[in-house]
Amino acid sequence: MARIDGRSADQLRPVTLTRQWLDHAEGSVLVEFGRTRVLCAASVTEGVPRWRKGSGLGWVSAEYAMLPRSTNTRSDRESVKGRIGGRTHEISRLIGRSLRAVIDYKALGENTILLDCDVLQADGGTRTAAITGAYVALADAVSWLRDRKLLKSEPLTGSVSAVSVGIIDGTPMLDLCYEEDVRAETDMNLVITGEGKFIEVQGTAEGAPFDRAELDSLLELGTAGCLELTKLQQEALS
Amino acid sequence: MARIDGRSADQLRPVTLTRQWLDHAEGSVLVEFGRTRVLCAASVTEGVPRWRKGSGLGWVSAEYAMLPRSTNTRSDRESVKGRIGGRTHEISRLIGRSLRAVIDYKALGENTILLDCDVLQADGGTRTAAITGAYVALADAVSWLRDRKLLKSEPLTGSVSAVSVGIIDGTPMLDLCYEEDVRAETDMNLVITGEGKFIEVQGTAEGAPFDRAELDSLLELGTAGCLELTKLQQEALS
Amino acid sequence: MARIDGRSADQLRPVTLTRQWLDHAEGSVLVEFGRTRVLCAASVTEGVPRWRKGSGLGWVSAEYAMLPRSTNTRSDRESVKGRIGGRTHEISRLIGRSLRAVIDYKALGENTILLDCDVLQADGGTRTAAITGAYVALADAVSWLRDRKLLKSEPLTGSVSAVSVGIIDGTPMLDLCYEEDVRAETDMNLVITGEGKFIEVQGTAEGAPFDRAELDSLLELGTAGCLELTKLQQEALS
Amino acid sequence: MARIDGRSADQLRPVTLTRQWLDHAEGSVLVEFGRTRVLCAASVTEGVPRWRKGSGLGWVSAEYAMLPRSTNTRSDRESVKGRIGGRTHEISRLIGRSLRAVIDYKALGENTILLDCDVLQADGGTRTAAITGAYVALADAVSWLRDRKLLKSEPLTGSVSAVSVGIIDGTPMLDLCYEEDVRAETDMNLVITGEGKFIEVQGTAEGAPFDRAELDSLLELGTAGCLELTKLQQEALS
Amino acid sequence: MARIDGRSADQLRPVTLTRQWLDHAEGSVLVEFGRTRVLCAASVTEGVPRWRKGSGLGWVSAEYAMLPRSTNTRSDRESVKGRIGGRTHEISRLIGRSLRAVIDYKALGENTILLDCDVLQADGGTRTAAITGAYVALADAVSWLRDRKLLKSEPLTGSVSAVSVGIIDGTPMLDLCYEEDVRAETDMNLVITGEGKFIEVQGTAEGAPFDRAELDSLLELGTAGCLELTKLQQEALS
Amino acid sequence: MARIDGRSADQLRPVTLTRQWLDHAEGSVLVEFGRTRVLCAASVTEGVPRWRKGSGLGWVSAEYAMLPRSTNTRSDRESVKGRIGGRTHEISRLIGRSLRAVIDYKALGENTILLDCDVLQADGGTRTAAITGAYVALADAVSWLRDRKLLKSEPLTGSVSAVSVGIIDGTPMLDLCYEEDVRAETDMNLVITGEGKFIEVQGTAEGAPFDRAELDSLLELGTAGCLELTKLQQEALS
Repeated sequence: MARIDGRSADQLRPVTLTRQWLDHAEGSVLVEFGRTRVLCAASVTEGVPRWRKGSGLGWVSAEYAMLPRSTNTRSDRESVKGRIGGRTHEISRLIGRSLRAVIDYKALGENTILLDCDVLQADGGTRTAAITGAYVALADAVSWLRDRKLLKSEPLTGSVSAVSVGIIDGTPMLDLCYEEDVRAETDMNLVITGEGKFIEVQGTAEGAPFDRAELDSLLELGTAGCLELTKLQQEALS
Repeated sequence: MARIDGRSADQLRPVTLTRQWLDHAEGSVLVEFGRTRVLCAASVTEGVPRWRKGSGLGWVSAEYAMLPRSTNTRSDRESVKGRIGGRTHEISRLIGRSLRAVIDYKALGENTILLDCDVLQADGGTRTAAITGAYVALADAVSWLRDRKLLKSEPLTGSVSAVSVGIIDGTPMLDLCYEEDVRAETDMNLVITGEGKFIEVQGTAEGAPFDRAELDSLLELGTAGCLELTKLQQEALS
Repeated sequence: MARIDGRSADQLRPVTLTRQWLDHAEGSVLVEFGRTRVLCAASVTEGVPRWRKGSGLGWVSAEYAMLPRSTNTRSDRESVKGRIGGRTHEISRLIGRSLRAVIDYKALGENTILLDCDVLQADGGTRTAAITGAYVALADAVSWLRDRKLLKSEPLTGSVSAVSVGIIDGTPMLDLCYEEDVRAETDMNLVITGEGKFIEVQGTAEGAPFDRAELDSLLELGTAGCLELTKLQQEALS
Repeated sequence: MARIDGRSADQLRPVTLTRQWLDHAEGSVLVEFGRTRVLCAASVTEGVPRWRKGSGLGWVSAEYAMLPRSTNTRSDRESVKGRIGGRTHEISRLIGRSLRAVIDYKALGENTILLDCDVLQADGGTRTAAITGAYVALADAVSWLRDRKLLKSEPLTGSVSAVSVGIIDGTPMLDLCYEEDVRAETDMNLVITGEGKFIEVQGTAEGAPFDRAELDSLLELGTAGCLELTKLQQEALS
Repeated sequence: MARIDGRSADQLRPVTLTRQWLDHAEGSVLVEFGRTRVLCAASVTEGVPRWRKGSGLGWVSAEYAMLPRSTNTRSDRESVKGRIGGRTHEISRLIGRSLRAVIDYKALGENTILLDCDVLQADGGTRTAAITGAYVALADAVSWLRDRKLLKSEPLTGSVSAVSVGIIDGTPMLDLCYEEDVRAETDMNLVITGEGKFIEVQGTAEGAPFDRAELDSLLELGTAGCLELTKLQQEALS
Repeated sequence: MARIDGRSADQLRPVTLTRQWLDHAEGSVLVEFGRTRVLCAASVTEGVPRWRKGSGLGWVSAEYAMLPRSTNTRSDRESVKGRIGGRTHEISRLIGRSLRAVIDYKALGENTILLDCDVLQADGGTRTAAITGAYVALADAVSWLRDRKLLKSEPLTGSVSAVSVGIIDGTPMLDLCYEEDVRAETDMNLVITGEGKFIEVQGTAEGAPFDRAELDSLLELGTAGCLELTKLQQEALS
């Protein structure tokens, strides 16, 4: 079955990871999954949030947001509305959890790394692009700390990437663009380590509930996609 | 391996579903999973949200909240803080999606059913208890509409229940209480139809990433647990 | 004149005070005045608000809220609206003031007791039920402190209960249910000590202004009602 | 017993009611109770709030606020804090209710009169000064409507004034200034019609609970004070 | 060309500066530019904002607000809306900057002076009246500090006043009232020291863009107006 | 005198205007003034704000914001803080006013063009870069409307650009970078039409007040700079 943009079912969109896109941030990556474009900036600060002070442990968190005209139809700014929406909260939390899964807090020491993931243009898969790009920005921020001898030992215990998968007209497909995402009966986001283990599995039946066989095929497709993204991350960082 | 409360690894906590706990609501259930106690109230209103008007289709959504002293340590009220937290948003959205998966909007007609799930006491699994109880309150609200001849046809296309599963010290366990939840390396919430198909699969590595074999064992344990809950829902409704 | 529910003019609705309704709170009471049902939870914390630190004096305060479907027609959550309404503020302050009237701050020491009064079901008199129940939860929280030897001396200087009275079609009546409350020309809430002294007198002409004779008859009716509630509190606590 | 400012126990502070203090408002009064100074502005608008449309009935409401430096120590602005405090809400509601008690909605027709009561300087009794002044501004706004032939019949069914009373060192006193208010064991605000009937009775034990005899003496003192204020209102309006 | 109120093009409205309008504030001025009436209150507090602590330097800032019925049509309160509008922010910042331009932070020592400028009645030029009046209140607050020997040396390095100018039907005019302000093609606010130097120049083309010659004529008109205001300030303070 | 980056006093930083940087927006420009980088997106919607409906006139407005890590030190998101700061409000209003100065509302018809100006990287002059880039995005959005025959006549009555000027160590300089901006004694932003007329003149003494001669030199320097920017805009659009 041909996809909208001519890809095969198990093919990623063209992915680019442009490091050092910003001059000020300790790590920064412009990540593109096709037309989806997310700017990931890592900010290092000495110290940790209050509830963690004196523990000797570091902290990593993330904030996700979309520019108002990143989408086809303009959305109101959350700053203007005066409150952050549920979707934004949910994705910020997901990115933070995903990155923390490969961090050794003790090795990081009492430092905080905050990842800002701002969607400049959205065409499906913004949260998975954000995680994939944020990992690279995080790695650069860790290098920045290492170069300044601010680390006791290596805080990165592995790498992390993410991809969406979905079932469209009965066919499991990898890395959905917006048009596909809207049509998908089932939609799943997978966050996976460089060694192919799961950090997050989030599957949702948008239409009919899905059975175990469908779930299995999505898990396989997504795992393969993430391993490809892992390679692209390694190339970008080398 | 013995569990804190003496259960076996694949055993649910005592579950009760008390219908008509409130006098005003079109459907209401006090659901208990052990010491976790959630009050689910279904409110029927004629009409649908603005963006759906004139479509002939109904709508179902949910709001989740915790009483400040439902937990061991008191939490500040979100009304006092002036904003709803990310976790509250996330769970409200999950409950809504889960219930909509078994609703035929056309049969519901332009009516809205809103499920309020207020946690009176929390001991782990509040979101899964809420979904399990809210389904029963939803069914009662649908009956209320049916009794008043306000439905074209049957809007419920199936039933839905939910349960948490997790891996503790390497052992997959069903329906975690708070103390187990805190200790779990991996934590998964499953929302499943009465026929055993998946509506939501949300797994998170809290500690080490998990592999495919662990994921498979959790899926099986949770599916079995949900089918038990389905039976309890059927009994409550009959 | 017969009342809607068959009571005589000077008769309370059936009142129940169920202690230890919650497992976590230092004191908790489910109070029922007829169909009005309020969950009162007392939370003890060491220390006092910033403006009171170092004074050697304790603090007691209260927060009141209604579940969205406690009423006949669902109300929007104040957390969703992002602000607390005037009525909620007013009642929270009233409950706090009422309880503080029977507290010896010095004997309490630098401890804070916060009373959460959440209306699960509303049928008139929610604020008076809340005060009556909260006193019992407060007494339990004080016992909790006493049992742990955290008190210098007895902080409770008396007991407190509350009831509504009103004039309907010219007749003064005790403990109005919602339907009566709506019809009342004059509405008064009385907060009274166990010894029959006044803590709060809040009378409002909803229709025509009232004269001194009417005021006097309401004060007598309410005082008698509160003394009955005092007995029920003593029974519950013994 | 001599009072701080030399008054006798049953004596009001010097009261002035300056009409037309503003050029734009349909009614405006600068009311002074001693050093307490409140600017009351009445705004007339055609139409009523949405929930009242088509009823043929008018509406009157009020908003109370304090300038940040009206008090001895500067308070933060509620606009800066982003939320209105409980005390502000409570007093706004009280003023609105008090004025509505002397309004015939039908005679007013579908017009709204909003009373803004802004405290320019506070020295105790701001809410009672606000009610007393707002009544005069309201009367002027009604005249404004009458002059333009916008009224069916007379909407004012009476006049309203308010005063505080309290017990200090065992002595009941009228119209407390700030310093007295702070020292009062019992504090009561009375809102009374020009004919001496009660609209609101709000008594609070700040220290020890008060008995019926004390309550009676306060009611008498306040009633007399209000009747004096009524005369001053009549003079101002004539 | 005759102006609405009969003034010549280069004539100020009648200006009054009434000092000590409030009893509590360390400095207070009721400033009137014609019908525009602004209450300026200076509040002195020991200490400085957190970001300035330990620097040995003082701080001056300002907050501007309009009473809801200061204008011809009532505006909603910003406290009720829960957020401060852009215009309010902008003017508060302008007043603060203008006053800070004549303050020697070192001489002030670690003290803060906050100027509250509340518009009681608005008829154009509220921000320029506010700056002109706030300077006098600031001078009084500085005297208050001086009298209490709380200053190292003189913190006031000069005086500051402000006026609006505009072009109406091609004619440059001084100190616009509201009706003129609405009709002006170009509108400029000038903040000038007592010695005629510029602190702020804010010109805006409301209609057609303006050329250099027009800009020059406005600068001259405004400078002359401010020097007149300077004299009135000196008289008020002497 | 040599500038930090080797420029002469009257020299702009390298300026680029990259059109069509986004796929969805009706006009979009990435504008760079040296390291300052602002993404300007124009969104066209049919219809106008409520207060303008039925007038036959169009509307143009703008929203400005900074990404949290656009600056050297990360700033908190305004969406997280729940309120928009004064500076953001001020600049959004300035951009909107500047663009409206070259719009014929009648020719635009009842259409709205909203310009989102998001600062991706900040190094001084973000508001002037935003205005300069937003004009180009606006021109593209107008072309988009023209191509779809949605315009009655030409709504653009001219072009607009903006630049900052300032006095550093006594020398007037054009287009300040961040480091220069911080050191400037006087700071001015000029918004000028393609024909060299003034739309906005905003000068502020950051240190000592400035005299007329200094003001004149800044006006000349800025005017020349804007005419250069006008040429770059014309090239970009041709």
